Amino acid sequence: MSKADAQGSDGHGVFRLPQYVKRIQAGGMNTKPDMRILQDKPATAVLDGDNAMGHLVMTRAANIAIEKARSCGIGWVGACNSNHAGPASLYASMPLAQDMIGLYIAIGSANHLPPWGGISMLLSTNPIAIAVPSLQHPPIVLDMATTNAAYGKVKMKAQRNEQMPEGWMIDRQGKPLTDPKRASEGFLLPVGGPKGYGLALMFGLLAGTLNGAAFGKDVIDFNKDFKTTTNTGHLIVALNIAAFMDVQSFKQKVDDIWTEMKSSPTLPGFDEVRLPGERSARIYEDRMANGYTLPQELRRALDDLADQVHVERL
Amino acid sequence: MSKADAQGSDGHGVFRLPQYVKRIQAGGMNTKPDMRILQDKPATAVLDGDNAMGHLVMTRAANIAIEKARSCGIGWVGACNSNHAGPASLYASMPLAQDMIGLYIAIGSANHLPPWGGISMLLSTNPIAIAVPSLQHPPIVLDMATTNAAYGKVKMKAQRNEQMPEGWMIDRQGKPLTDPKRASEGFLLPVGGPKGYGLALMFGLLAGTLNGAAFGKDVIDFNKDFKTTTNTGHLIVALNIAAFMDVQSFKQKVDDIWTEMKSSPTLPGFDEVRLPGERSARIYEDRMANGYTLPQELRRALDDLADQVHVERL
Repeated sequence: MSKADAQGSDGHGVFRLPQYVKRIQAGGMNTKPDMRILQDKPATAVLDGDNAMGHLVMTRAANIAIEKARSCGIGWVGACNSNHAGPASLYASMPLAQDMIGLYIAIGSANHLPPWGGISMLLSTNPIAIAVPSLQHPPIVLDMATTNAAYGKVKMKAQRNEQMPEGWMIDRQGKPLTDPKRASEGFLLPVGGPKGYGLALMFGLLAGTLNGAAFGKDVIDFNKDFKTTTNTGHLIVALNIAAFMDVQSFKQKVDDIWTEMKSSPTLPGFDEVRLPGERSARIYEDRMANGYTLPQELRRALDDLADQVHVERL
Repeated sequence: MSKADAQGSDGHGVFRLPQYVKRIQAGGMNTKPDMRILQDKPATAVLDGDNAMGHLVMTRAANIAIEKARSCGIGWVGACNSNHAGPASLYASMPLAQDMIGLYIAIGSANHLPPWGGISMLLSTNPIAIAVPSLQHPPIVLDMATTNAAYGKVKMKAQRNEQMPEGWMIDRQGKPLTDPKRASEGFLLPVGGPKGYGLALMFGLLAGTLNGAAFGKDVIDFNKDFKTTTNTGHLIVALNIAAFMDVQSFKQKVDDIWTEMKSSPTLPGFDEVRLPGERSARIYEDRMANGYTLPQELRRALDDLADQVHVERL
């Protein structure tokens, strides 16, 4: 959670702590899990998270994927009986230190997206993250919801009393919805219309259905129900660069691509071209060097939580 | 090519034949390829296509991926020295008959997309296709460019003397471009703005750079240069469902998801919710049963081509 805040993924950082604690207190999450490998092949596995914090399940899954990629070239590990795990980029980035590429997909922890043209909220923001190492530059790390906005961003807007831009949500008549406090009256919009719906659906089948995890109407809304096991599904892939080409040559080529993109002249209204993950890398460096002041609302929420569970305030 | 036409992927069917023949005649494609596996691990491989038709290279790559998935749970095969291969869905669908899920990503065969906020055309429409089998229904098959429109659709509009809708392309000042005959003056727009740019970039690193294939400024525009080896990159993944769960149970669950999505009431202006690949499956059934009349312009182009290479007209 603190790494999420440090890299600027504020909607996935300590901001989520009160909700996690509430779920643990309600008996909806297992603090003494016995994780088990349900299926095991040379390059794939399914991990049963035994309803642990998603952060723990996916760290374990990433390590299994990395080990498999060492011998097989790739490791693809799915998880069931997991929970919300924070920012997708954290897990996709885990294979980087082993000179591997990481890919992570998750089922979002509440359905806020209908199939394209429909109004039943059967899908979530099902995010994807892909992380690729470079030589001189920060790794290139894409982390995106399949909706125009992640639901965490809607929550942030509500907590900060700000309006949402048009394009994030529509209401059940198809009209733009910009007040985040009315979020329950509408739903998120997928990227590229039917294409984002298609990605959210396929990611759901891969990260959920294939692992025996919840998808579609079986997804528990973790904002409303703190007790029922969510059976959250995720998947992580580690891809061993050395199985494809010389690692240093690859990283050098990634650097070249970075430089190429940066060298593009810009459209009116743009200062620079950015690479995915570049902003997060800058924020991480800045916050680790200079610290970071939590928004007042969040600070207050964490102090309340500290009082409630009898630990020292921040 | 005929399967592409049969399933309604008209922009990737026999429409492309004159261009392929032109490339072969100019010496830009190898009709007697000696494909070789450059890298081989239990679950991964890199295939050198020896500049063959992409269709041949990726059929070979799909078969290798399927064999690896049988023993390892997954097979991930990258290709270099390949060429344009037609619709992504054809290859993603190959593992379906083996009770496997397919995933295919390719580098587009000409750069029509700048990085987000930039104007240098360093990226292509880099498409992704994912195919998942079901029990009673057609397989769910997503096939999408990372741009709002694939460039083949722009070409179709030009050939049919039709205008493009706003959102497909902008000019170098950032203004909407709707005349497909002016396509060379502008560039395609990515899905979801920076997110589509991110996907196109990551897919390029995975399908191109990692396989030693062309990406970025090294991509040859196959519309303008018929002689230079394109070194097109693709990747295909076969995922063995039996390595994750009972195959019949999985297919039944995919059917359930199909039914769930279909059951959603619709937004004003929509008749029904569609599943990815549903329309193609309907068109395929119809065209195989009732035949399909080629557009007049295309028929004429194919007749001209037949005359030119001294084969019988259609």
